Amino acid sequence: MKTKTAYLSFNTNKKIEIIRITDQVSRVISDSGVKDGLVLVNPMHITAAVIVNDNESGLHDDYLKVLEKLVPYQSDYRHNDTGEDNAAAHIWRQLLGHQVVMPITNGKLDLGPWEQIFYFEFDGQRQKRVLVKVIGE
Amino acid sequence: MKTKTAYLSFNTNKKIEIIRITDQVSRVISDSGVKDGLVLVNPMHITAAVIVNDNESGLHDDYLKVLEKLVPYQSDYRHNDTGEDNAAAHIWRQLLGHQVVMPITNGKLDLGPWEQIFYFEFDGQRQKRVLVKVIGE
Amino acid sequence: MKTKTAYLSFNTNKKIEIIRITDQVSRVISDSGVKDGLVLVNPMHITAAVIVNDNESGLHDDYLKVLEKLVPYQSDYRHNDTGEDNAAAHIWRQLLGHQVVMPITNGKLDLGPWEQIFYFEFDGQRQKRVLVKVIGE
Repeated sequence: MKTKTAYLSFNTNKKIEIIRITDQVSRVISDSGVKDGLVLVNPMHITAAVIVNDNESGLHDDYLKVLEKLVPYQSDYRHNDTGEDNAAAHIWRQLLGHQVVMPITNGKLDLGPWEQIFYFEFDGQRQKRVLVKVIGE
Repeated sequence: MKTKTAYLSFNTNKKIEIIRITDQVSRVISDSGVKDGLVLVNPMHITAAVIVNDNESGLHDDYLKVLEKLVPYQSDYRHNDTGEDNAAAHIWRQLLGHQVVMPITNGKLDLGPWEQIFYFEFDGQRQKRVLVKVIGE
Repeated sequence: MKTKTAYLSFNTNKKIEIIRITDQVSRVISDSGVKDGLVLVNPMHITAAVIVNDNESGLHDDYLKVLEKLVPYQSDYRHNDTGEDNAAAHIWRQLLGHQVVMPITNGKLDLGPWEQIFYFEFDGQRQKRVLVKVIGE
């Protein structure tokens, strides 16, 4: 059994930003030497999500518009009484599904035709990390 | 360490359809010979989800009714300006949680009394695949 | 390769309750002897969720308030025609993301500064279990 762990770093220009990270995850898999196994991609901060979906900017806008409609960023949240302004960011990341585990076959991400991995930052402009852990053989 | 990868195929009669796939996943586990480990069940298309919940048709209707209320299938989405009509399908699959990793113990899915695995198709009537990857020993 | 499986038991005082389980998961990891790998934390009952987020009670109230707004616990659900009253609990657990897979590095949960693991019970006051499966080496 082989494992490899890497930490991707992000410090986005905007508070809310969507970044495609498929290539960065693929590089960790190549470095691991794992031919068959799983890769966990998990944000280490709790106002961000890692999801798999389409690399289409219109759809990304749709996601944000839906989240804002369902759970407005500026609203009356008890969490924000602590001095934070990011309660909605915590909730958004849960609604989208906060992490992914993806398959590795023949040494590569085993993706469908449109599957791409994205980092969704909902409270950016500060240092954040995403853990990538490969396990397999 | 052992691994096994299988691809389940679906081409649903309806655009929106829910299919129980516990038995198909169990078969892959039996074929793998893995006695203890994990199985990833991941839709390879991004308008479908794999979830674990109850095998009760009323509840399945409730899911769809809630999704339609929160994120109407027919509405004004930027993604649909590309000629697609499935923006909501992309979003629904994120709201429900798009994939599952389930435990294997004593060579079988280690499920609670009501846990069943389902394929939720939100943009069907075409060829789709679900990847099943078993890892363990 | 090593594996270890444990079953955590819960019987909450209230129907809806949030319980921090990071330490219980950590104990299973210690017992497993696994230094590098993954841990699946999966509720075996389908009206509960395991999520990773912030240990802040105000935020926990915000989650419940948002869920109640989007999917009211008391409403007209077909599932509840079966004699149940927990349709919303089934749906809530999907909206939040029902399970997590977390990384183990150097024999410990490899967590960011604020990541904590929680059990969200949405239909409590009865016996429930959460499966913890460690896999690694």
